[in-house]
Amino acid sequence: MMSPGFTGSPLDRADRVRNDAEAYGALLADWRARVLGLDGLDPRVSDAGGLHWHSMAELDGSEELILLGLSDDKPHFVAVVEATGDAFRSPAIWRALSMLPAEDAAIYGTARSLIEWHNNHRFCGRCGHATLLFRAGWGRKCGNCAKEHFPRTDPVVIMLAEYEGKALVGRQSRFPPGNYSALAGFLEPGESMEEAVRREIHEEAGVTCGAVRYVTSQPWPFGGSQLMMACIADAQGDALVLDTTEIEDAMWVTKEEARAALEGASDRRFNAPPPFAIAHSLLKYWVSQ
Amino acid sequence: MMSPGFTGSPLDRADRVRNDAEAYGALLADWRARVLGLDGLDPRVSDAGGLHWHSMAELDGSEELILLGLSDDKPHFVAVVEATGDAFRSPAIWRALSMLPAEDAAIYGTARSLIEWHNNHRFCGRCGHATLLFRAGWGRKCGNCAKEHFPRTDPVVIMLAEYEGKALVGRQSRFPPGNYSALAGFLEPGESMEEAVRREIHEEAGVTCGAVRYVTSQPWPFGGSQLMMACIADAQGDALVLDTTEIEDAMWVTKEEARAALEGASDRRFNAPPPFAIAHSLLKYWVSQ
Repeated sequence: MMSPGFTGSPLDRADRVRNDAEAYGALLADWRARVLGLDGLDPRVSDAGGLHWHSMAELDGSEELILLGLSDDKPHFVAVVEATGDAFRSPAIWRALSMLPAEDAAIYGTARSLIEWHNNHRFCGRCGHATLLFRAGWGRKCGNCAKEHFPRTDPVVIMLAEYEGKALVGRQSRFPPGNYSALAGFLEPGESMEEAVRREIHEEAGVTCGAVRYVTSQPWPFGGSQLMMACIADAQGDALVLDTTEIEDAMWVTKEEARAALEGASDRRFNAPPPFAIAHSLLKYWVSQ
Repeated sequence: MMSPGFTGSPLDRADRVRNDAEAYGALLADWRARVLGLDGLDPRVSDAGGLHWHSMAELDGSEELILLGLSDDKPHFVAVVEATGDAFRSPAIWRALSMLPAEDAAIYGTARSLIEWHNNHRFCGRCGHATLLFRAGWGRKCGNCAKEHFPRTDPVVIMLAEYEGKALVGRQSRFPPGNYSALAGFLEPGESMEEAVRREIHEEAGVTCGAVRYVTSQPWPFGGSQLMMACIADAQGDALVLDTTEIEDAMWVTKEEARAALEGASDRRFNAPPPFAIAHSLLKYWVSQ
Protein backbone atom coordinates (compact mmCIF):
# COMPACT_ATOMS: atom_id res chain seq x y z
CA MET A 1 0.00 0.00 0.00
CA MET A 2 1.05 3.62 -0.49
CA SER A 3 3.02 5.54 2.11
CA PRO A 4 2.43 9.20 1.33
CA GLY A 5 5.08 11.75 2.31
CA PHE A 6 5.33 12.92 5.94
CA THR A 7 3.73 9.71 7.25
CA GLY A 8 5.49 6.92 9.14
CA SER A 9 7.01 8.70 12.12
CA PRO A 10 8.65 6.07 14.35
CA LEU A 11 8.05 8.13 17.51
CA ASP A 12 5.53 7.04 20.15
CA ARG A 13 3.60 10.25 20.86
CA ALA A 14 3.25 9.16 24.50
CA ASP A 15 0.00 11.02 25.09
CA ARG A 16 -0.10 9.46 28.57
CA VAL A 17 2.84 11.48 29.91
CA ARG A 18 1.72 14.87 28.56
CA ASN A 19 -0.55 15.48 31.56
CA ASP A 20 1.61 13.62 34.06
CA ALA A 21 3.91 16.22 35.67
CA GLU A 22 6.09 13.62 37.36
CA ALA A 23 6.61 11.45 34.30
CA TYR A 24 7.17 14.51 32.12
CA GLY A 25 9.70 15.92 34.58
CA ALA A 26 11.63 12.66 34.39
CA LEU A 27 11.79 12.93 30.59
CA LEU A 28 13.07 16.51 30.80
CA ALA A 29 15.81 15.36 33.19
CA ASP A 30 16.72 12.29 31.11
CA TRP A 31 20.36 12.60 30.01
CA ARG A 32 19.53 10.62 26.86
CA ALA A 33 17.04 13.28 25.70
CA ARG A 34 17.46 14.49 22.13
CA VAL A 35 16.53 17.90 20.74
CA LEU A 36 15.82 18.44 17.06
CA GLY A 37 18.35 20.67 15.32
CA LEU A 38 16.78 23.37 13.15
CA ASP A 39 18.09 26.21 11.08
CA GLY A 40 15.21 28.66 11.50
CA LEU A 41 12.29 26.47 10.46
CA ASP A 42 14.39 24.39 8.07
CA PRO A 43 15.76 20.99 9.08
CA ARG A 44 19.48 20.63 9.69
CA VAL A 45 20.56 17.56 7.80
CA SER A 46 23.29 15.41 9.38
CA ASP A 47 26.30 14.12 7.48
CA ALA A 48 24.53 10.76 7.29
CA GLY A 49 21.64 12.45 5.47
CA GLY A 50 19.14 12.33 8.37
CA LEU A 51 17.81 14.81 10.90
CA HIS A 52 20.35 16.40 13.22
CA TRP A 53 19.75 15.89 16.96
CA HIS A 54 21.59 17.54 19.84
CA SER A 55 21.45 17.23 23.62
CA MET A 56 19.53 19.32 26.16
CA ALA A 57 22.88 20.83 27.18
CA GLU A 58 22.83 22.99 24.06
CA LEU A 59 19.66 24.80 25.16
CA ASP A 60 19.84 27.89 27.33
CA GLY A 61 16.84 26.83 29.44
CA SER A 62 14.49 29.62 28.42
CA GLU A 63 13.05 27.77 25.42
CA GLU A 64 9.49 26.50 25.17
CA LEU A 65 9.82 22.74 24.58
CA ILE A 66 7.54 20.30 22.79
CA LEU A 67 7.74 16.57 23.47
CA LEU A 68 7.67 15.02 19.99
CA GLY A 69 7.64 11.51 21.44
CA LEU A 70 9.66 8.54 22.53
CA SER A 71 11.86 6.13 20.64
CA ASP A 72 13.44 3.25 22.58
CA ASP A 73 12.20 5.14 25.67
CA LYS A 74 14.42 8.05 24.69
CA PRO A 75 12.55 11.40 24.76
CA HIS A 76 12.70 13.54 21.62
CA PHE A 77 11.99 17.28 21.91
CA VAL A 78 11.94 20.35 19.73
CA ALA A 79 12.25 23.95 20.94
CA VAL A 80 9.77 26.54 19.68
CA VAL A 81 11.58 29.05 17.47
CA GLU A 82 10.16 32.23 16.03
CA ALA A 83 8.51 31.29 12.75
CA THR A 84 8.46 33.90 10.06
CA GLY A 85 8.10 34.03 6.32
CA ASP A 86 7.27 31.17 4.03
CA ALA A 87 10.25 28.87 4.16
CA PHE A 88 8.50 26.31 1.98
CA ARG A 89 9.27 28.37 -1.07
CA SER A 90 12.99 28.37 -0.19
CA PRO A 91 15.31 26.07 -2.17
CA ALA A 92 16.85 24.82 1.12
CA ILE A 93 13.69 23.08 2.25
CA TRP A 94 13.20 21.33 -1.09
CA ARG A 95 16.79 20.13 -1.04
CA ALA A 96 16.42 18.84 2.52
CA LEU A 97 13.17 17.02 1.73
CA SER A 98 14.72 15.24 -1.21
CA MET A 99 17.46 13.91 1.11
CA LEU A 100 15.62 13.02 4.33
CA PRO A 101 14.48 9.41 4.88
CA ALA A 102 10.65 9.14 5.09
CA GLU A 103 10.65 8.61 8.86
CA ASP A 104 12.73 11.73 9.43
CA ALA A 105 10.52 13.81 7.15
CA ALA A 106 7.52 12.72 9.24
CA ILE A 107 9.20 13.80 12.49
CA TYR A 108 10.28 17.10 10.95
CA GLY A 109 6.77 17.78 9.62
CA THR A 110 5.23 17.23 13.06
CA ALA A 111 7.76 19.55 14.68
CA ARG A 112 7.31 22.25 12.09
CA SER A 113 3.49 22.22 12.31
CA LEU A 114 3.62 22.52 16.09
CA ILE A 115 6.17 25.35 16.03
CA GLU A 116 4.07 27.38 13.61
CA TRP A 117 0.98 26.75 15.72
CA HIS A 118 2.68 28.02 18.89
CA ASN A 119 3.79 31.16 17.07
CA ASN A 120 0.23 31.88 15.99
CA HIS A 121 -1.42 31.16 19.35
CA ARG A 122 0.59 33.23 21.82
CA PHE A 123 -2.61 35.08 22.70
CA CYS A 124 -6.08 33.81 23.53
CA GLY A 125 -8.53 34.18 20.64
CA ARG A 126 -11.41 34.50 23.09
CA CYS A 127 -10.09 37.19 25.47
CA GLY A 128 -6.83 38.50 23.96
CA HIS A 129 -4.58 37.70 26.95
CA ALA A 130 -1.27 35.85 26.75
CA THR A 131 -1.31 32.05 26.63
CA LEU A 132 1.17 29.64 28.17
CA LEU A 133 2.38 26.33 26.79
CA PHE A 134 1.00 23.25 28.60
CA ARG A 135 0.52 19.49 27.98
CA ALA A 136 4.19 19.04 27.04
CA GLY A 137 3.78 21.44 24.13
CA TRP A 138 0.52 19.94 22.82
CA GLY A 139 -1.59 22.90 23.91
CA ARG A 140 -1.60 26.45 25.24
CA LYS A 141 -3.73 27.77 28.07
CA CYS A 142 -4.93 31.34 28.59
CA GLY A 143 -3.45 32.98 31.68
CA ASN A 144 -6.61 35.05 32.07
CA CYS A 145 -9.75 33.08 31.11
CA ALA A 146 -8.10 29.62 31.32
CA LYS A 147 -9.39 28.60 27.89
CA GLU A 148 -7.38 25.69 26.54
CA HIS A 149 -6.18 25.86 22.95
CA PHE A 150 -5.06 22.77 21.03
CA PRO A 151 -2.86 22.42 17.95
CA ARG A 152 -4.88 23.08 14.85
CA THR A 153 -4.95 20.88 11.76
CA ASP A 154 -6.93 22.07 8.76
CA PRO A 155 -8.59 19.39 6.62
CA VAL A 156 -7.91 19.91 2.91
CA VAL A 157 -9.45 17.93 0.06
CA ILE A 158 -7.18 17.13 -2.90
CA MET A 159 -8.69 15.26 -5.79
CA LEU A 160 -8.84 14.06 -9.34
CA ALA A 161 -12.12 14.37 -11.21
CA GLU A 162 -12.36 11.39 -13.57
CA TYR A 163 -14.27 11.30 -16.86
CA GLU A 164 -14.12 8.59 -19.53
CA GLY A 165 -10.71 7.37 -18.43
CA LYS A 166 -9.15 10.82 -18.09
CA ALA A 167 -8.30 12.77 -14.96
CA LEU A 168 -8.45 16.51 -14.38
CA VAL A 169 -5.23 18.27 -13.35
CA GLY A 170 -4.70 22.00 -12.91
CA ARG A 171 -1.99 24.53 -12.25
CA GLN A 172 -1.74 27.66 -10.11
CA SER A 173 0.16 30.64 -11.46
CA ARG A 174 2.77 30.25 -8.69
CA PHE A 175 3.71 26.71 -9.89
CA PRO A 176 6.96 26.21 -11.81
CA PRO A 177 6.39 26.23 -15.60
CA GLY A 178 4.74 23.06 -16.91
CA ASN A 179 3.74 21.75 -13.48
CA TYR A 180 0.21 20.41 -12.98
CA SER A 181 -1.30 18.82 -9.91
CA ALA A 182 -4.58 17.64 -8.43
CA LEU A 183 -7.09 20.36 -7.55
CA ALA A 184 -7.30 21.12 -3.83
CA GLY A 185 -9.02 23.33 -1.30
CA PHE A 186 -9.85 23.75 2.38
CA LEU A 187 -12.84 21.89 3.75
CA GLU A 188 -15.30 24.34 5.34
CA PRO A 189 -17.37 24.04 8.51
CA GLY A 190 -20.63 22.22 7.82
CA GLU A 191 -19.54 19.94 5.01
CA SER A 192 -18.38 16.36 4.72
CA MET A 193 -15.21 15.38 2.85
CA GLU A 194 -17.31 14.23 -0.09
CA GLU A 195 -19.25 17.51 -0.22
CA ALA A 196 -16.03 19.55 -0.06
CA VAL A 197 -14.57 17.55 -2.98
CA ARG A 198 -17.63 18.21 -5.15
CA ARG A 199 -17.81 21.89 -4.19
CA GLU A 200 -14.12 22.56 -4.89
CA ILE A 201 -14.12 20.87 -8.29
CA HIS A 202 -17.23 22.80 -9.23
CA GLU A 203 -15.86 26.13 -7.96
CA GLU A 204 -12.46 25.80 -9.58
CA ALA A 205 -13.25 24.00 -12.83
CA GLY A 206 -17.03 24.17 -13.29
CA VAL A 207 -17.28 20.36 -13.33
CA THR A 208 -20.17 18.61 -11.55
CA CYS A 209 -19.27 15.33 -9.84
CA GLY A 210 -21.22 12.43 -8.36
CA ALA A 211 -19.63 9.66 -6.30
CA VAL A 212 -16.41 10.43 -4.42
CA ARG A 213 -13.91 7.73 -3.42
CA TYR A 214 -11.38 8.35 -0.66
CA VAL A 215 -7.88 7.10 -1.52
CA THR A 216 -5.37 8.12 1.17
CA SER A 217 -4.23 10.98 3.41
CA GLN A 218 -1.09 12.79 4.56
CA PRO A 219 -0.18 15.52 7.02
CA TRP A 220 1.26 18.60 5.30
CA PRO A 221 3.46 20.85 7.42
CA PHE A 222 3.79 23.99 5.29
CA GLY A 223 1.79 27.13 5.89
CA GLY A 224 0.46 25.64 9.12
CA SER A 225 -0.72 22.09 9.61
CA GLN A 226 -3.00 20.44 7.11
CA LEU A 227 -4.55 17.02 6.70
CA MET A 228 -4.56 16.35 2.96
CA MET A 229 -7.36 13.91 2.07
CA ALA A 230 -6.91 12.52 -1.44
CA CYS A 231 -10.00 11.45 -3.41
CA ILE A 232 -11.21 10.53 -6.87
CA ALA A 233 -14.57 11.92 -8.00
CA ASP A 234 -16.79 10.77 -10.88
CA ALA A 235 -17.32 13.75 -13.19
CA GLN A 236 -20.58 14.08 -15.07
CA GLY A 237 -19.04 15.89 -18.05
CA ASP A 238 -15.71 17.30 -19.24
CA ALA A 239 -16.57 20.91 -20.10
CA LEU A 240 -14.36 23.27 -18.08
CA VAL A 241 -15.22 26.70 -16.68
CA LEU A 242 -12.11 27.80 -14.80
CA ASP A 243 -12.02 30.13 -11.81
CA THR A 244 -8.84 31.89 -12.90
CA THR A 245 -8.37 33.49 -9.47
CA GLU A 246 -7.70 29.95 -8.22
CA ILE A 247 -6.19 28.08 -11.16
CA GLU A 248 -4.46 29.35 -14.24
CA ASP A 249 -5.10 26.28 -16.35
CA ALA A 250 -6.62 22.80 -16.17
CA MET A 251 -6.70 19.85 -18.55
CA TRP A 252 -7.87 16.25 -18.82
CA VAL A 253 -4.99 13.78 -19.04
CA THR A 254 -4.84 10.11 -19.92
CA LYS A 255 -3.22 7.44 -17.77
CA GLU A 256 -0.37 7.24 -20.28
CA GLU A 257 0.22 10.98 -19.97
CA ALA A 258 0.10 10.82 -16.16
CA ARG A 259 2.52 7.87 -16.16
CA ALA A 260 4.96 9.74 -18.40
CA ALA A 261 4.76 12.74 -16.06
CA LEU A 262 5.38 10.60 -12.95
CA GLU A 263 8.34 8.94 -14.66
CA GLY A 264 9.73 12.26 -15.87
CA ALA A 265 9.74 11.00 -19.47
CA SER A 266 11.36 13.43 -21.90
CA ASP A 267 8.19 13.67 -24.01
CA ARG A 268 5.87 14.23 -21.01
CA ARG A 269 2.91 16.56 -21.42
CA PHE A 270 3.35 18.06 -17.94
CA ASN A 271 5.54 17.91 -14.84
CA ALA A 272 4.10 15.88 -11.95
CA PRO A 273 4.17 16.98 -8.30
CA PRO A 274 7.20 15.81 -6.22
CA PRO A 275 7.08 12.37 -4.52
CA PHE A 276 6.55 13.78 -1.00
CA ALA A 277 3.29 15.48 -2.11
CA ILE A 278 0.15 13.38 -1.85
CA ALA A 279 -0.90 14.51 -5.33
CA HIS A 280 1.98 12.36 -6.54
CA SER A 281 0.68 9.33 -4.59
CA LEU A 282 -2.84 10.02 -5.87
CA LEU A 283 -1.79 10.20 -9.52
CA LYS A 284 0.26 7.03 -9.07
CA TYR A 285 -2.72 5.24 -7.55
CA TRP A 286 -5.02 6.41 -10.34
CA VAL A 287 -2.58 5.26 -13.04
CA SER A 288 -2.36 1.83 -11.39
CA GLN A 289 -6.16 1.29 -11.41
CA MET B 1 -25.11 5.31 -0.23
CA MET B 2 -25.23 6.60 3.33
CA SER B 3 -26.09 10.20 4.15
CA PRO B 4 -24.62 10.84 7.58
CA GLY B 5 -26.23 13.49 9.81
CA PHE B 6 -25.48 17.18 9.19
CA THR B 7 -24.65 16.56 5.51
CA GLY B 8 -26.79 17.57 2.53
CA SER B 9 -27.18 21.32 2.97
CA PRO B 10 -29.08 22.66 -0.07
CA LEU B 11 -27.36 26.06 0.15
CA ASP B 12 -24.85 27.20 -2.46
CA ARG B 13 -21.98 28.57 -0.35
CA ALA B 14 -21.34 31.17 -3.05
CA ASP B 15 -17.65 31.51 -2.28
CA ARG B 16 -17.36 33.88 -5.27
CA VAL B 17 -19.31 36.68 -3.60
CA ARG B 18 -17.53 36.58 -0.24
CA ASN B 19 -14.69 38.77 -1.49
CA ASP B 20 -16.82 40.81 -3.90
CA ALA B 21 -17.95 43.91 -1.98
CA GLU B 22 -20.45 44.97 -4.62
CA ALA B 23 -22.12 41.57 -5.01
CA TYR B 24 -22.16 41.08 -1.25
CA GLY B 25 -23.70 44.52 -0.69
CA ALA B 26 -26.49 43.58 -3.10
CA LEU B 27 -27.21 40.43 -1.07
CA LEU B 28 -27.35 42.43 2.17
CA ALA B 29 -29.85 44.82 0.55
CA ASP B 30 -31.97 42.03 -0.99
CA TRP B 31 -35.51 42.23 0.46
CA ARG B 32 -35.84 38.45 0.02
CA ALA B 33 -32.92 37.82 2.41
CA ARG B 34 -33.62 35.35 5.21
CA VAL B 35 -31.99 35.25 8.64
CA LEU B 36 -31.81 32.06 10.70
CA GLY B 37 -33.86 32.18 13.89
CA LEU B 38 -31.99 30.96 16.95
CA ASP B 39 -32.78 30.69 20.62
CA GLY B 40 -29.31 31.24 22.05
CA LEU B 41 -27.36 28.60 20.12
CA ASP B 42 -30.36 26.27 19.78
CA PRO B 43 -32.43 26.15 16.61
CA ARG B 44 -35.92 27.61 16.68
CA VAL B 45 -38.16 25.03 15.06
CA SER B 46 -41.06 26.32 12.96
CA ASP B 47 -44.62 25.00 13.27
CA ALA B 48 -43.96 22.97 10.13
CA GLY B 49 -41.05 21.26 11.90
CA GLY B 50 -38.23 23.01 10.01
CA LEU B 51 -35.81 25.82 10.78
CA HIS B 52 -37.34 29.21 11.52
CA TRP B 53 -36.26 32.09 9.22
CA HIS B 54 -37.02 35.77 9.66
CA SER B 55 -36.31 38.89 7.61
CA MET B 56 -33.46 41.39 7.90
CA ALA B 57 -35.99 43.85 9.34
CA GLU B 58 -35.88 41.99 12.64
CA LEU B 59 -32.17 42.77 13.14
CA ASP B 60 -31.07 45.96 14.86
CA GLY B 61 -28.22 46.53 12.41
CA SER B 62 -25.35 46.08 14.89
CA GLU B 63 -25.07 42.32 14.44
CA GLU B 64 -22.14 40.58 12.82
CA LEU B 65 -23.60 38.64 9.89
CA ILE B 66 -22.48 35.43 8.18
CA LEU B 67 -23.61 34.56 4.66
CA LEU B 68 -24.60 30.90 4.92
CA GLY B 69 -25.33 30.72 1.21
CA LEU B 70 -27.91 31.05 -1.53
CA SER B 71 -31.00 29.05 -2.37
CA ASP B 72 -32.97 30.02 -5.48
CA ASP B 73 -30.72 33.11 -5.49
CA LYS B 74 -32.14 34.08 -2.09
CA PRO B 75 -29.40 34.96 0.43
CA HIS B 76 -29.48 33.16 3.77
CA PHE B 77 -27.69 34.71 6.76
CA VAL B 78 -27.13 34.06 10.42
CA ALA B 79 -26.19 36.65 13.05
CA VAL B 80 -23.34 35.91 15.45
CA VAL B 81 -24.71 35.52 18.97
CA GLU B 82 -22.72 35.15 22.14
CA ALA B 83 -21.99 31.44 22.56
CA THR B 84 -21.68 30.15 26.07
CA GLY B 85 -21.94 26.85 27.85
CA ASP B 86 -22.39 23.46 26.29
CA ALA B 87 -25.84 23.49 24.74
CA PHE B 88 -25.29 20.07 23.21
CA ARG B 89 -25.97 18.46 26.56
CA SER B 90 -29.33 20.31 26.82
CA PRO B 91 -32.53 18.32 26.16
CA ALA B 92 -33.76 21.11 23.84
CA ILE B 93 -31.08 20.48 21.23
CA TRP B 94 -31.71 16.74 21.15
CA ARG B 95 -35.43 17.31 20.73
CA ALA B 96 -34.84 19.78 17.90
CA LEU B 97 -32.42 17.43 16.11
CA SER B 98 -34.93 14.59 16.22
CA MET B 99 -37.47 16.85 14.46
CA LEU B 100 -35.43 18.75 11.86
CA PRO B 101 -35.28 17.46 8.27
CA ALA B 102 -31.73 16.43 7.25
CA GLU B 103 -31.22 19.50 5.04
CA ASP B 104 -32.18 21.85 7.86
CA ALA B 105 -29.90 20.08 10.33
CA ALA B 106 -27.02 20.59 7.87
CA ILE B 107 -27.72 24.34 7.61
CA TYR B 108 -28.06 24.65 11.37
CA GLY B 109 -24.81 22.77 11.96
CA THR B 110 -22.90 25.09 9.63
CA ALA B 111 -24.34 28.17 11.33
CA ARG B 112 -23.59 26.87 14.80
CA SER B 113 -19.98 25.96 14.01
CA LEU B 114 -19.33 29.40 12.53
CA ILE B 115 -20.94 31.24 15.46
CA GLU B 116 -18.80 29.34 17.97
CA TRP B 117 -15.70 30.03 15.91
CA HIS B 118 -16.37 33.79 15.83
CA ASN B 119 -16.85 33.80 19.61
CA ASN B 120 -13.48 32.13 20.11
CA HIS B 121 -11.55 34.28 17.63
CA ARG B 122 -12.41 37.85 18.64
CA PHE B 123 -8.70 38.43 19.27
CA CYS B 124 -5.64 37.66 17.17
CA GLY B 125 -3.74 34.61 18.40
CA ARG B 126 -0.52 36.03 17.03
CA CYS B 127 -0.55 39.56 18.51
CA GLY B 128 -3.53 39.72 20.90
CA HIS B 129 -5.34 42.63 19.23
CA ALA B 130 -9.03 42.65 18.30
CA THR B 131 -10.09 40.98 15.03
CA LEU B 132 -12.86 42.08 12.67
CA LEU B 133 -15.19 39.88 10.66
CA PHE B 134 -14.47 39.80 6.90
CA ARG B 135 -15.19 37.62 3.83
CA ALA B 136 -18.94 37.66 4.53
CA GLY B 137 -18.37 35.98 7.89
CA TRP B 138 -15.96 33.31 6.61
CA GLY B 139 -12.94 34.85 8.30
CA ARG B 140 -11.68 37.43 10.78
CA LYS B 141 -8.77 39.81 10.25
CA CYS B 142 -6.53 41.35 12.89
CA GLY B 143 -6.93 45.14 13.14
CA ASN B 144 -3.28 45.40 14.18
CA CYS B 145 -1.05 42.89 12.36
CA ALA B 146 -3.55 42.13 9.55
CA LYS B 147 -3.25 38.37 10.03
CA GLU B 148 -6.22 36.60 8.48
CA HIS B 149 -7.93 33.88 10.51
CA PHE B 150 -10.20 31.31 8.91
CA PRO B 151 -12.92 29.11 10.42
CA ARG B 152 -11.39 26.12 12.08
CA THR B 153 -12.49 22.53 11.58
CA ASP B 154 -10.82 19.84 13.66
CA PRO B 155 -10.39 16.41 12.03
CA VAL B 156 -11.54 13.60 14.32
CA VAL B 157 -11.17 9.88 13.65
CA ILE B 158 -14.05 7.63 14.73
CA MET B 159 -13.68 3.93 14.17
CA LEU B 160 -14.50 0.31 14.76
CA ALA B 161 -11.67 -2.11 15.30
CA GLU B 162 -12.72 -5.44 13.76
CA TYR B 163 -11.53 -8.89 14.85
CA GLU B 164 -12.92 -12.25 13.77
CA GLY B 165 -16.29 -10.81 12.79
CA LYS B 166 -16.70 -8.69 15.92
CA ALA B 167 -16.39 -4.93 16.32
CA LEU B 168 -15.08 -2.95 19.27
CA VAL B 169 -17.42 -0.42 20.89
CA GLY B 170 -16.77 1.60 24.02
CA ARG B 171 -18.48 3.99 26.40
CA GLN B 172 -17.43 7.17 28.17
CA SER B 173 -18.61 7.75 31.73
CA ARG B 174 -20.70 10.74 30.57
CA PHE B 175 -22.79 8.53 28.21
CA PRO B 176 -26.36 7.59 29.23
CA PRO B 177 -26.49 4.15 30.90
CA GLY B 178 -26.06 1.25 28.46
CA ASN B 179 -24.88 3.43 25.56
CA TYR B 180 -21.86 2.31 23.54
CA SER B 181 -20.35 3.91 20.46
CA ALA B 182 -17.34 3.78 18.17
CA LEU B 183 -14.04 4.93 19.70
CA ALA B 184 -12.97 8.41 18.61
CA GLY B 185 -10.27 11.01 19.06
CA PHE B 186 -8.71 14.13 17.56
CA LEU B 187 -6.19 13.71 14.79
CA GLU B 188 -2.90 15.38 15.74
CA PRO B 189 -0.47 17.42 13.65
CA GLY B 190 1.95 15.16 11.80
CA GLU B 191 -0.22 12.10 11.33
CA SER B 192 -2.40 10.73 8.55
CA MET B 193 -5.99 9.63 9.12
CA GLU B 194 -4.86 6.01 9.13
CA GLU B 195 -2.11 6.67 11.68
CA ALA B 196 -4.54 8.55 13.96
CA VAL B 197 -7.00 5.62 13.82
CA ARG B 198 -4.31 3.13 14.84
CA ARG B 199 -2.93 5.40 17.58
CA GLU B 200 -6.34 6.12 19.13
CA ILE B 201 -7.42 2.48 19.24
CA HIS B 202 -4.12 1.55 20.80
CA GLU B 203 -4.21 4.38 23.35
CA GLU B 204 -7.80 3.82 24.43
CA ALA B 205 -8.14 0.04 24.23
CA GLY B 206 -4.63 -1.38 23.90
CA VAL B 207 -5.48 -3.03 20.57
CA THR B 208 -2.95 -3.01 17.72
CA CYS B 209 -4.43 -2.59 14.23
CA GLY B 210 -3.16 -3.03 10.68
CA ALA B 211 -5.09 -1.92 7.59
CA VAL B 212 -7.55 0.97 7.98
CA ARG B 213 -10.52 1.44 5.60
CA TYR B 214 -12.23 4.83 5.32
CA VAL B 215 -16.02 4.58 5.24
CA THR B 216 -17.62 8.03 5.33
CA SER B 217 -17.50 11.46 6.99
CA GLN B 218 -19.71 14.09 8.58
CA PRO B 219 -19.36 17.60 9.97
CA TRP B 220 -20.14 17.77 13.71
CA PRO B 221 -21.18 21.14 15.07
CA PHE B 222 -20.97 20.66 18.84
CA GLY B 223 -18.10 21.88 20.94
CA GLY B 224 -16.68 23.70 17.90
CA SER B 225 -16.51 22.35 14.38
CA GLN B 226 -15.27 18.86 13.72
CA LEU B 227 -14.86 16.67 10.67
CA MET B 228 -15.70 13.15 11.81
CA MET B 229 -13.92 10.60 9.61
CA ALA B 230 -15.37 7.12 10.09
CA CYS B 231 -13.13 4.09 9.53
CA ILE B 232 -12.86 0.36 10.13
CA ALA B 233 -9.50 -1.01 11.24
CA ASP B 234 -8.26 -4.61 11.19
CA ALA B 235 -7.32 -5.58 14.75
CA GLN B 236 -4.48 -8.02 15.33
CA GLY B 237 -5.96 -9.42 18.56
CA ASP B 238 -8.88 -8.94 20.91
CA ALA B 239 -7.21 -8.49 24.31
CA LEU B 240 -8.25 -5.14 25.81
CA VAL B 241 -6.19 -2.78 28.00
CA LEU B 242 -8.48 0.19 28.63
CA ASP B 243 -7.37 3.75 29.30
CA THR B 244 -10.04 4.43 31.89
CA THR B 245 -9.42 8.19 31.78
CA GLU B 246 -10.84 8.04 28.24
CA ILE B 247 -13.32 5.17 28.23
CA GLU B 248 -15.15 3.49 31.08
CA ASP B 249 -15.78 0.23 29.26
CA ALA B 250 -15.32 -1.43 25.88
CA MET B 251 -16.51 -4.72 24.40
CA TRP B 252 -16.47 -6.76 21.21
CA VAL B 253 -19.94 -7.12 19.66
CA THR B 254 -21.30 -9.35 16.89
CA LYS B 255 -23.21 -8.07 13.87
CA GLU B 256 -26.39 -9.53 15.36
CA GLU B 257 -25.81 -7.58 18.56
CA ALA B 258 -25.07 -4.37 16.66
CA ARG B 259 -28.19 -4.86 14.52
CA ALA B 260 -30.35 -5.35 17.61
CA ALA B 261 -28.90 -2.16 19.11
CA LEU B 262 -29.53 -0.14 15.92
CA GLU B 263 -33.11 -1.44 15.79
CA GLY B 264 -33.68 -0.74 19.48
CA ALA B 265 -34.69 -4.38 20.05
CA SER B 266 -35.94 -5.07 23.57
CA ASP B 267 -33.25 -7.72 24.19
CA ARG B 268 -30.39 -5.55 22.87
CA ARG B 269 -27.01 -5.82 24.57
CA PHE B 270 -26.36 -2.05 24.34
CA ASN B 271 -27.91 1.21 23.17
CA ALA B 272 -26.64 2.50 19.81
CA PRO B 273 -25.73 6.13 19.10
CA PRO B 274 -28.54 8.33 17.65
CA PRO B 275 -29.13 8.38 13.86
CA PHE B 276 -27.60 11.84 13.36
CA ALA B 277 -24.25 10.64 14.79
CA ILE B 278 -21.84 9.13 12.28
CA ALA B 279 -21.15 6.25 14.69
CA HIS B 280 -24.69 5.16 13.87
CA SER B 281 -23.98 5.25 10.11
CA LEU B 282 -20.70 3.41 10.69
CA LEU B 283 -22.28 0.60 12.72
CA LYS B 284 -25.05 0.31 10.12
CA TYR B 285 -22.48 0.06 7.33
CA TRP B 286 -20.48 -2.55 9.22
CA VAL B 287 -23.58 -4.67 9.91
CA SER B 288 -24.49 -4.55 6.21
CA GLN B 289 -21.08 -5.85 5.07
